[in-house]
Amino acid sequence: MQLLRVLAALILLATQPFTASAGEWGTGALMVVIERETGSVAVIDSANDHKFLGRVEGLGVLHHASIVFSRDGRYAYVVSRDSILSKIDLINLKVAAQVKTGESAVGLALSQDGKFIAISNYKPGNIVIVSDETFKIAKTINADKSKTVGMVDAPDDMFIVSLMDANAIWIIDAGKKDFPVVKKFTDIGEKPYDALLTPDGRYYMAGLFHSPWVTMIDLWNPEKITKIPLPVPKGMEDKPPVLKIPHLEGWIMAEDKLFAPVVGGSGLAVIDRETWTSKRFIETLAHPIFAMARPDMQQIWTNYVMGDFHDKVEVIDVKTEKVIKTLTPGNKIFHMHFTPKGREIYISSNGDNKVLVYDTKNFKKIKEIPVKNPSGVFCSSRLSQFGL
Amino acid sequence: MQLLRVLAALILLATQPFTASAGEWGTGALMVVIERETGSVAVIDSANDHKFLGRVEGLGVLHHASIVFSRDGRYAYVVSRDSILSKIDLINLKVAAQVKTGESAVGLALSQDGKFIAISNYKPGNIVIVSDETFKIAKTINADKSKTVGMVDAPDDMFIVSLMDANAIWIIDAGKKDFPVVKKFTDIGEKPYDALLTPDGRYYMAGLFHSPWVTMIDLWNPEKITKIPLPVPKGMEDKPPVLKIPHLEGWIMAEDKLFAPVVGGSGLAVIDRETWTSKRFIETLAHPIFAMARPDMQQIWTNYVMGDFHDKVEVIDVKTEKVIKTLTPGNKIFHMHFTPKGREIYISSNGDNKVLVYDTKNFKKIKEIPVKNPSGVFCSSRLSQFGL
Repeated sequence: MQLLRVLAALILLATQPFTASAGEWGTGALMVVIERETGSVAVIDSANDHKFLGRVEGLGVLHHASIVFSRDGRYAYVVSRDSILSKIDLINLKVAAQVKTGESAVGLALSQDGKFIAISNYKPGNIVIVSDETFKIAKTINADKSKTVGMVDAPDDMFIVSLMDANAIWIIDAGKKDFPVVKKFTDIGEKPYDALLTPDGRYYMAGLFHSPWVTMIDLWNPEKITKIPLPVPKGMEDKPPVLKIPHLEGWIMAEDKLFAPVVGGSGLAVIDRETWTSKRFIETLAHPIFAMARPDMQQIWTNYVMGDFHDKVEVIDVKTEKVIKTLTPGNKIFHMHFTPKGREIYISSNGDNKVLVYDTKNFKKIKEIPVKNPSGVFCSSRLSQFGL
Repeated sequence: MQLLRVLAALILLATQPFTASAGEWGTGALMVVIERETGSVAVIDSANDHKFLGRVEGLGVLHHASIVFSRDGRYAYVVSRDSILSKIDLINLKVAAQVKTGESAVGLALSQDGKFIAISNYKPGNIVIVSDETFKIAKTINADKSKTVGMVDAPDDMFIVSLMDANAIWIIDAGKKDFPVVKKFTDIGEKPYDALLTPDGRYYMAGLFHSPWVTMIDLWNPEKITKIPLPVPKGMEDKPPVLKIPHLEGWIMAEDKLFAPVVGGSGLAVIDRETWTSKRFIETLAHPIFAMARPDMQQIWTNYVMGDFHDKVEVIDVKTEKVIKTLTPGNKIFHMHFTPKGREIYISSNGDNKVLVYDTKNFKKIKEIPVKNPSGVFCSSRLSQFGL
């Protein structure tokens, strides 16, 4: 009997799910790729031969999904278009927690202290704050029935968000009890559609549908709003139409210059940071949807998603302000992300069900990774960057 | 017999070292603290209640030791004063590989592609390049018998290093066969003692023992050398003595200003980046050994290590250029490091055998962690920064 008991204990021990099933990998440079049509993400280790580690499913509708990372890179937070917030464990490759936060969401941010996740909802027009510990809704902030966009985290546990219909920018203090809106900016222009925070956590810039400028708030001097005029493409002087929405994420601050894709134009405006005036225009094949700077700021990579140049990526040399390379990585290039120091770039080809890895020094393809309808690519090294 | 065989198999299975012994934690924000007198490091998880995860021993003489991280944050590379390079596994908390690279070393860097580690040796005066894969010496580059210092990694797989006795700065291409020295700068000044690369990977700046300037190389325009004159403290106009060596690591570029501790002075010089001239001088208690900028560039924290103010830390507000807080965290404050977005700071009190964690918003102490004679503190989020 004694032997049987030992045997039973051993069987139990041997068949228990080992923590060994946890992935034994670092979480500092994981690439998490949105699989747009299947409500899943693919996880790839960019630091170790770009190995496909696995897939996590059951994340909701991932059209226009966006990801932020926990302070240690272990978890990815994703909010689905149908407002399901998921916390993905990147070691065990499973959903660690999930909560429904509304009907339609477009963005999220993690507070600097790592304790709260803020969701910007289109529907209902609000901001929902979720506690990371309990994964329950800690607060719902009504946004005057406005869709909310451009949600970022800022220094000192702040969240900043734009109100698309109410034409406002709000600052929320996630370090204070009950998450007060501590500042409301109005007179920003009409219909903010996206925003970014500069990597130093200082400037919040919002793009506007119906105003020909970008609104900028300097968090060090938050009294005044700066309006950066945008160059109007030729032939559209009377009424610049909104042809495509450029994502602001990829706006680039390099030295004293800002590189910005301009609504309606085929290229990047080069804007002087001292005077905030437009100095030059770099022509590209079409209107860039994303313009991403290599971390050393020497190159800008652009893509076009749809249209004649859906399969193209162009590389602009920042120093000379010229296109130095045109690549054809695959059909429908949706998004791109550099590895932490920019030695490689990940490019998602939605049309070809692949993520391509390119060498940014010689522009050669390093690897093709099968991924289902990939769209957004996010690297866990974002954990150390404000606004991402 | 069958039962016994099953039993034996089960015992084997049950007693095998599980991968479960591997730490199940993210590696994006680990703090690795040098334990100066015991040849060990302490590993702390800054993202999870600042938990002490464990200690790794057998790393050689860790006086003046420095650490870099692998691209995924899983491994820390440390070179000891007696030139032993160790690769520390931060998940299994053990030495994964080790190699002796010389007699006396002061610094190291990991190439952008993660494939090679470069060691700068004092003795013999050389640069040793180790393959990460084999952990064997791949190349020894003679440095004209000069001590080598200020080793950093730069974009496109370059290493940059200063030759203390040969008064030169060299660029080594780790992406090419046999690691050629592709550029040699001379006429830099006398006796470089330390150097830094700005976070954008563009400017290499070397401090000099015997010249009253800092030599700067712009890697985008590497033809010319810029000499940034340093302000001479009052009463030392004739011959500024070398009282203490400021570490360059903590030089701060905020907006258009450079904040630099100046040899012989009690404070930080504020240098205009446009003209590279010294504009102001911020008085501190003593000569800062380290001056570290919070990632959002709003605060600079200084320490003094020895002397009357060994136990003090001062906080300077970048906007007003004034000291806004003086703390007394413990005896012999040797080093500091911010968490990835700067919400907290780690401060090593060598005299008290403790690492202190402070809140950078309200300056309150969050935690005390017992660590043996701590000196340098390094966060794995450095994996995404050039020159660190």
